[in-house]
Amino acid sequence: MSELRKDPVIGRWVIISSDRGKRPDDFKVGDGGGSHDKCPFCPGNEKFTPPEIVAYRDEASKSPSEWQLRVIPNKYPALSVEGDLNRQGESMYDKMNGIGAHEIIIETPEHSKCISTMSDRQVESIILAYRDRIVDLKKDIRFEYILVFKNQGPHSGATLSHSHSQLIATPVVPKRVREEVNGAKNYYDYKERCVFCDIVKNELDVKTRVVCENELFVALCPFASRFPFELWMLPKKHDSQFEDIQKEEAASFASILRKVMAKIDKVLNKPSYNYLIHNSPLKESRLLHYHWHMEIMPRLTRVAGFEWGSGFYINPVAPEEAAKVLREAD
Amino acid sequence: MSELRKDPVIGRWVIISSDRGKRPDDFKVGDGGGSHDKCPFCPGNEKFTPPEIVAYRDEASKSPSEWQLRVIPNKYPALSVEGDLNRQGESMYDKMNGIGAHEIIIETPEHSKCISTMSDRQVESIILAYRDRIVDLKKDIRFEYILVFKNQGPHSGATLSHSHSQLIATPVVPKRVREEVNGAKNYYDYKERCVFCDIVKNELDVKTRVVCENELFVALCPFASRFPFELWMLPKKHDSQFEDIQKEEAASFASILRKVMAKIDKVLNKPSYNYLIHNSPLKESRLLHYHWHMEIMPRLTRVAGFEWGSGFYINPVAPEEAAKVLREAD
Repeated sequence: MSELRKDPVIGRWVIISSDRGKRPDDFKVGDGGGSHDKCPFCPGNEKFTPPEIVAYRDEASKSPSEWQLRVIPNKYPALSVEGDLNRQGESMYDKMNGIGAHEIIIETPEHSKCISTMSDRQVESIILAYRDRIVDLKKDIRFEYILVFKNQGPHSGATLSHSHSQLIATPVVPKRVREEVNGAKNYYDYKERCVFCDIVKNELDVKTRVVCENELFVALCPFASRFPFELWMLPKKHDSQFEDIQKEEAASFASILRKVMAKIDKVLNKPSYNYLIHNSPLKESRLLHYHWHMEIMPRLTRVAGFEWGSGFYINPVAPEEAAKVLREAD
Repeated sequence: MSELRKDPVIGRWVIISSDRGKRPDDFKVGDGGGSHDKCPFCPGNEKFTPPEIVAYRDEASKSPSEWQLRVIPNKYPALSVEGDLNRQGESMYDKMNGIGAHEIIIETPEHSKCISTMSDRQVESIILAYRDRIVDLKKDIRFEYILVFKNQGPHSGATLSHSHSQLIATPVVPKRVREEVNGAKNYYDYKERCVFCDIVKNELDVKTRVVCENELFVALCPFASRFPFELWMLPKKHDSQFEDIQKEEAASFASILRKVMAKIDKVLNKPSYNYLIHNSPLKESRLLHYHWHMEIMPRLTRVAGFEWGSGFYINPVAPEEAAKVLREAD
């Protein structure tokens, strides 16, 4: 079983997952490729994955291989569902068992589809799958946070090219999430307004960093973007919990997500990217100061080497320029 | 001029450096290569770099091209020395001019040398150059922090292969540094001991995560390593400021750094890596709770995609395993 360990200086938890263990020789960077024939995520190859947790099928589907979307446990999970946390010290340090959940959302039966080439309907089913899995996993009181994310393309960390997302349920709130929620709380305490609501309003007024919007959502390049073409998508209406999303909101979110990804793929020639849903911690519901959103980070530069260790980002593309290029792309 | 912008939620400053601007097409990942002929860092090619800030030469050297080490301004600086900070608001946001310094330390005249193949003496001169530049730049009261770092190899963000380090002097304390200093302060307030001194003592007692040591320094894989083969080097004796390093300490540090890099190059086959010196903020001197150190991060995995945005790290190699392999490599 993997282990969660806490850095004694800055309090960050990391997962030491040597079950997935690799020897020094094993650190080859994959091309994220893989052909249809051997793809474990393609229909007909279900036997190569762990048994599905849930799948979306048409009522008329007759075979287990006829599905529109499938959720499975990760075959090489970073965290395991079975067991106790067993929080304990080890000399001056703190650790606990690597308890959690690690699931894969296979987003489409079609091997070569990506978000930008799917139908809005298909993207909507992905959003609904995220929601359904969070609602289900929240019942497990050991979990403090659920991180939904997607690695797409060889520079993103993806090891399989068939379009998929992942979620990890953790028994701690990740440090970066805690900072964001606390930062938003400080702003709320001072202004008595949600900082993300203020960002949405400000950006829609100023317009220079807005990429596109629809009735319910706005996509924008944030003022202090860390990465070239970094993009956030926020609900216009305050809501701290992604999993409260209603079906019509999911449809609206899917539509703008697909549109944004089409713009990114066009302007940047199908780059590798990561996206994450920033959501409130599971045990802090209906916060006035927090506002869920999605962050999309195209992986364009490796220039950022030292930034891992310093938290100090140099972004060579102003968000206003990035937004303009994306806005004008069709 | 570039601009420093503050994220309104979590308070992180980023450099928006569109002077170095790139168009969407420009985001090709370089191979970090480049031949000797065209290398601007090779002796004889001094005219291709900005005028040197300082250089170490033998007393007998007769030509400007006979140097052992050279420090130059970065030709494409992320921050500029000239100008005022001009802190100001922009609608709901905070920003200031991109004032700072961005220098390159050309570590050796020999194009194909790296730390592990240099002499201890040459590595010592690199350490002394870091010290000298920090001492000099500290006189500029606009600066709050100086970040010394090295990107080595194509996966590190390096764009030139000739061995070099960089330093960036910033008018703000980077967020990650502030967190580390504050975390160490919290520990000190509670325990009345430096957390890094405790780590050094603990690791030398336990031994499993120690890679090597000499009289003055220890190299270890930290308990909560974020990355496979992450490695920290700490002075055994408490000291908060790197720039106080004495000549004999620099020699000792150079010796263990060269030894550690030789181990890393051997075990991991000359991987790309980043290293950083974590030092105290310039205006907080002789802290009882902070302890300078170097962090080395081999760039082995791209698996970490979403970690940029979540602060949630999954490390597939236990630090005890990494330390054992490195310890045994000669």
